[in-house]
Amino acid sequence: MDEVQVDVIADPDLEEPVLIEGLPGVGHVGKLAAEHLIEELESEPVRRVHSEYFPPQVTVGEEGVAELAGVEFHAIETGARDLLVLAGDYQANGMAGHYRVAEGFLDIAEAFGTEEIITLGGVPTGEIQEEYAVVGARNESGDRDRFEEGGVAFDTDEPSGGIVGTSGLLLGLGERRGIPAICLMGETSGYLVDPASAKAVLEVLEAVLEFEVDFTRLEQRAEELEEFLAEFQEQQSQGPQAPGDEDLRYFG
Amino acid sequence: MDEVQVDVIADPDLEEPVLIEGLPGVGHVGKLAAEHLIEELESEPVRRVHSEYFPPQVTVGEEGVAELAGVEFHAIETGARDLLVLAGDYQANGMAGHYRVAEGFLDIAEAFGTEEIITLGGVPTGEIQEEYAVVGARNESGDRDRFEEGGVAFDTDEPSGGIVGTSGLLLGLGERRGIPAICLMGETSGYLVDPASAKAVLEVLEAVLEFEVDFTRLEQRAEELEEFLAEFQEQQSQGPQAPGDEDLRYFG
Amino acid sequence: MDEVQVDVIADPDLEEPVLIEGLPGVGHVGKLAAEHLIEELESEPVRRVHSEYFPPQVTVGEEGVAELAGVEFHAIETGARDLLVLAGDYQANGMAGHYRVAEGFLDIAEAFGTEEIITLGGVPTGEIQEEYAVVGARNESGDRDRFEEGGVAFDTDEPSGGIVGTSGLLLGLGERRGIPAICLMGETSGYLVDPASAKAVLEVLEAVLEFEVDFTRLEQRAEELEEFLAEFQEQQSQGPQAPGDEDLRYFG
Amino acid sequence: MDEVQVDVIADPDLEEPVLIEGLPGVGHVGKLAAEHLIEELESEPVRRVHSEYFPPQVTVGEEGVAELAGVEFHAIETGARDLLVLAGDYQANGMAGHYRVAEGFLDIAEAFGTEEIITLGGVPTGEIQEEYAVVGARNESGDRDRFEEGGVAFDTDEPSGGIVGTSGLLLGLGERRGIPAICLMGETSGYLVDPASAKAVLEVLEAVLEFEVDFTRLEQRAEELEEFLAEFQEQQSQGPQAPGDEDLRYFG
Repeated sequence: MDEVQVDVIADPDLEEPVLIEGLPGVGHVGKLAAEHLIEELESEPVRRVHSEYFPPQVTVGEEGVAELAGVEFHAIETGARDLLVLAGDYQANGMAGHYRVAEGFLDIAEAFGTEEIITLGGVPTGEIQEEYAVVGARNESGDRDRFEEGGVAFDTDEPSGGIVGTSGLLLGLGERRGIPAICLMGETSGYLVDPASAKAVLEVLEAVLEFEVDFTRLEQRAEELEEFLAEFQEQQSQGPQAPGDEDLRYFG
Repeated sequence: MDEVQVDVIADPDLEEPVLIEGLPGVGHVGKLAAEHLIEELESEPVRRVHSEYFPPQVTVGEEGVAELAGVEFHAIETGARDLLVLAGDYQANGMAGHYRVAEGFLDIAEAFGTEEIITLGGVPTGEIQEEYAVVGARNESGDRDRFEEGGVAFDTDEPSGGIVGTSGLLLGLGERRGIPAICLMGETSGYLVDPASAKAVLEVLEAVLEFEVDFTRLEQRAEELEEFLAEFQEQQSQGPQAPGDEDLRYFG
Repeated sequence: MDEVQVDVIADPDLEEPVLIEGLPGVGHVGKLAAEHLIEELESEPVRRVHSEYFPPQVTVGEEGVAELAGVEFHAIETGARDLLVLAGDYQANGMAGHYRVAEGFLDIAEAFGTEEIITLGGVPTGEIQEEYAVVGARNESGDRDRFEEGGVAFDTDEPSGGIVGTSGLLLGLGERRGIPAICLMGETSGYLVDPASAKAVLEVLEAVLEFEVDFTRLEQRAEELEEFLAEFQEQQSQGPQAPGDEDLRYFG
Repeated sequence: MDEVQVDVIADPDLEEPVLIEGLPGVGHVGKLAAEHLIEELESEPVRRVHSEYFPPQVTVGEEGVAELAGVEFHAIETGARDLLVLAGDYQANGMAGHYRVAEGFLDIAEAFGTEEIITLGGVPTGEIQEEYAVVGARNESGDRDRFEEGGVAFDTDEPSGGIVGTSGLLLGLGERRGIPAICLMGETSGYLVDPASAKAVLEVLEAVLEFEVDFTRLEQRAEELEEFLAEFQEQQSQGPQAPGDEDLRYFG
C-alpha cells in the first residue's frame, strides 16, 4: 500500500467540480454538512483513500463486514456546479501525516479538474447559539465577494487560533497550487455535535453554488438535540446530581 | 536490519495454510488461543519477524539468553488444513508501523500460499461472562456460512469501536490483496486475561477447520482464575480494605 | 511540497549578513527581540519556510486571509553589518523535525553568505528580575571577546539544562559547517512574556553590531506589563480569591 | 548531517577491542561505570556520534562553549585487551531511532575490529542494597563461563521485564551480526544514582578482562551518598515533614 493510497471506485466526467471538504472537527459541523449533501443529493462514490497516517483499524458495518479506515470522495451533479465531496470518519495523524494526506486530497481534486475548494467546519463560541452565523476565511486566491453576498463574514484574525487540520491545510497547500479556497465555519458551542450549525453552513453553499437541498433530516436531528437539552436542563434544575460535562459533549 | 526483517527458521512444504493470528489485545484472548495451538499441536517455528516498529529491547529467557523483541510464525500440520500461526508478545508501535508490519505479515503468509486468514481476539463486554459467545467480522471476500455454522454471530456494526491493531488490519489489508479474512472475537469482561474466552474461540476453529486440540491446560488456567476471583470476592465482602481495580486486571 | 520548503520572496544583495534568530521560547525573549528589529528597522521579507514539521494549520490574518504555518527571513540593511533576521510563531515539531528544519535555515543563511550567527532567547531565573543580565553561549568557532565587551557573561555550564530548540541547534549544527555562532539569553522570570529582557538582549546586539534601534515600543510593552503586575499584586493582597498561576503566565 | 552522523576524532590501531557500553539507565550504573573507565584509565576520544534521534539541543560546558547533543567512543589500551568505551548523556529517542542508532554503534565497533560486546547497566530491586550482586544476560553467541567465574549469575527470565534500550539492543542486534555480547547489570535500588553498584560491575570487568582500575573516586561518591542517606533518614525520624520521594531519586 502506498503512503497515501487512492482507490478508483468510479470515474464520472465532472465539469470543474468544486471540492467540498467535511471531515471530523469542532461540533462535527463540516462532517455533518458534507454527509448531508452525499445523503440528500444524487451522489456516487468515486475515490476511496487509505493511508498509514489513518488509524490502524477497520470499522465494522452491515452484517459484520469490515472496512479499512479511510475517507471517500463522492461526485454530485447538482445541475449547476458539479461537486466533489470529501467526507469520512478520520483526520490524518501526526504533523507530516496531515500534510501528506492533504496533498493527496489535492492531487485527486486536481485530477478531476477542480478549480475551487470550499472546506467546511465549525468555530467554537463557548456558548449555546441562538443564531448560527457563518464565519469565512480564504486563501489569497480565494474569492470573497460571492461568499459575503451569501452572508459570510470575513473578519481579521478570526478565528484567532487559526484553522487546524485538513480544512486549514487545503487553504494553505491549495494556495501553493494556485487553487482558490474558502473555509466556511459555522458558529457552534463547541460542546455538542451541531446539526443546526451544519444547516447554516449548507445554506451559504446553496446560495453561492446555486443548488437546493432538503434540510428535513438535519432539522430533525437539531430538534432531537434541543429536546434532549431541554430535558437535561430541567433535570439539572431539579436534582442535586448534576451530570458531568461529559454528558453534554458530542451527543448527536 | 530491514524496516521489517524476516528471518527464515524453517521452510516446510505447507498446503495453502490458513493464517491464524493471535497477538496481545483485549483479554489476551487471541494470544492465549494462538499460543495454545502452538503448544498443544505439533508445531514448528518457521519465520521470526523483527522490526524497528517493535520496542527497542530484548527479552531474557533460559539461563539469561536474551532475544530481540519479535514475533513468530509456526507451521502446524493438523491432518486437515495446514495452519500458519502468528503469535508473540508485541503489536507494532505507531500508526505507520502497524500498517507496515501487517503488510510484512501478509507477505510471509502469501509466500506460504495462504488463501484464508483467521484473526483471533476478544471483545470487551464490561461484565464477568457466564457464557462465552464468539462474535465475527469479515472482510468482503471473507466466508460467512462456515463460521455461522460454527456458532459465530456476524452482527451489523459490532464491535462498534471497530477492530484495532493487527487483527483488524489483516482483514482490511488482506482484502486489498484479495485474501478472504475473518476475525473471531471471544466475549470477555475486558478486565482479565481470559483463557475461557480463548477456549470458546478455539472451539469455533476446531469446528470450522476440522481438527482437534486438547483443552486441559486452558481449562486449568480458567479454573485457577475462577478460584482466584472467588477468593478475591470473599475477601472483598469481609474486609474494608477492598483492593483497587488494578488487582483484577490482567491476572492470568 | 518539500520536507522543508523554501519560498523566495525577494533576493536583495546582502553583504555577509549576520543571521539573527528569534523564535518562540522562554519568555518569548528571542521572538520579541527579532520581531522588534523587523518592525523598527527597514526590513524586507526575503524567504518564507514551510514544512511538514510545522503544525498542520493556517493562521488567519487581515480580512480573513489565511496563511500556511511558517516562518520568515527578513533582510535588514543597518548601515553597518547587514542582518538576516529569522522570526515567526513556530518551532519545528519532533526530534528529527527540529534537526531538519534547522539545517534548512542554515542552507538559506549560507546561500546569503552568512558567516556569523547570533541566536536570541531567554534564560529562566524563576524570579521577577530587577535587572536584566545577558548570558552567552557560543560554539567553538564563536567569538567571545566582542560579546564580553558588550556586557555578556560566558559562564561554565550555564545554562545547566543546555539550550533546547533552534537557538541551540544553530550553534551545534553551525559548528559542523564552520560558522561561528553565539546564543544571547536574556535573564527572565520564565513566567511572563518579557519585553524588558528582549530589550536587554537587543542592547547587546546594538553594541556589538554597531547599529541603533528605537526601544520606545518595547519599553511601552514592558511598562504595560509592570502596571498589570502591580495591579495584580494589589488585588492579591486585598482579596482572598487569589488567581491561579495561569493568570500570570505569558501575558504580553 | 546524516541520520546517524559519525565524526572521526582519532584513529588509533586497536587490537580486537571489546566494546563496553554505558549510557544513561537504571541507577545510571552503566553510565557511571563507563565514565569511570574513561576517567581513570588512559583514554582517548575516537568517535563522536550525533543524530536527529538525539534531543535537539546543545549542552553548555567550559566558559559557555556549547556542544551538540551526542555520545562518544573512547579507546583505552589496558595492556591486556583493548577497550572501546561508549558513554554519554543520551539514549536515542523513539522506537526506530533506538534501532538505527544502535546499528550505527555496531558499525563503528565492527570497523575497529570488535569481536565482543559488554553492555553495562543496573537492575532495580526496589530495596536499598547491602551487597551488590551482578546479574548477567547474553546473546546466544555470548560467552557465559568467563563471566560466571567472575561472579556473574545468569538466571532464567531475569530481568523479567527484559533489557530496554541500547544495552539490550546491542545484544539482540549484535547476535544478528554474529558478535558475542553480554549485559552486566548491577543490582541497585532503582531510586538513586548508584556508584557502589557501578563499582561491583567494574570489578567483574576487571576480573574477566584482566586489567586494574583505581576505585577511589567511585568509593568517595558512594560514601557521600551513604552520608546523605544517613542524614536524610535521621531527619525523617525526627520531624514530621518527611520530604517526598523525589528528594531521594537520582541524587548523585
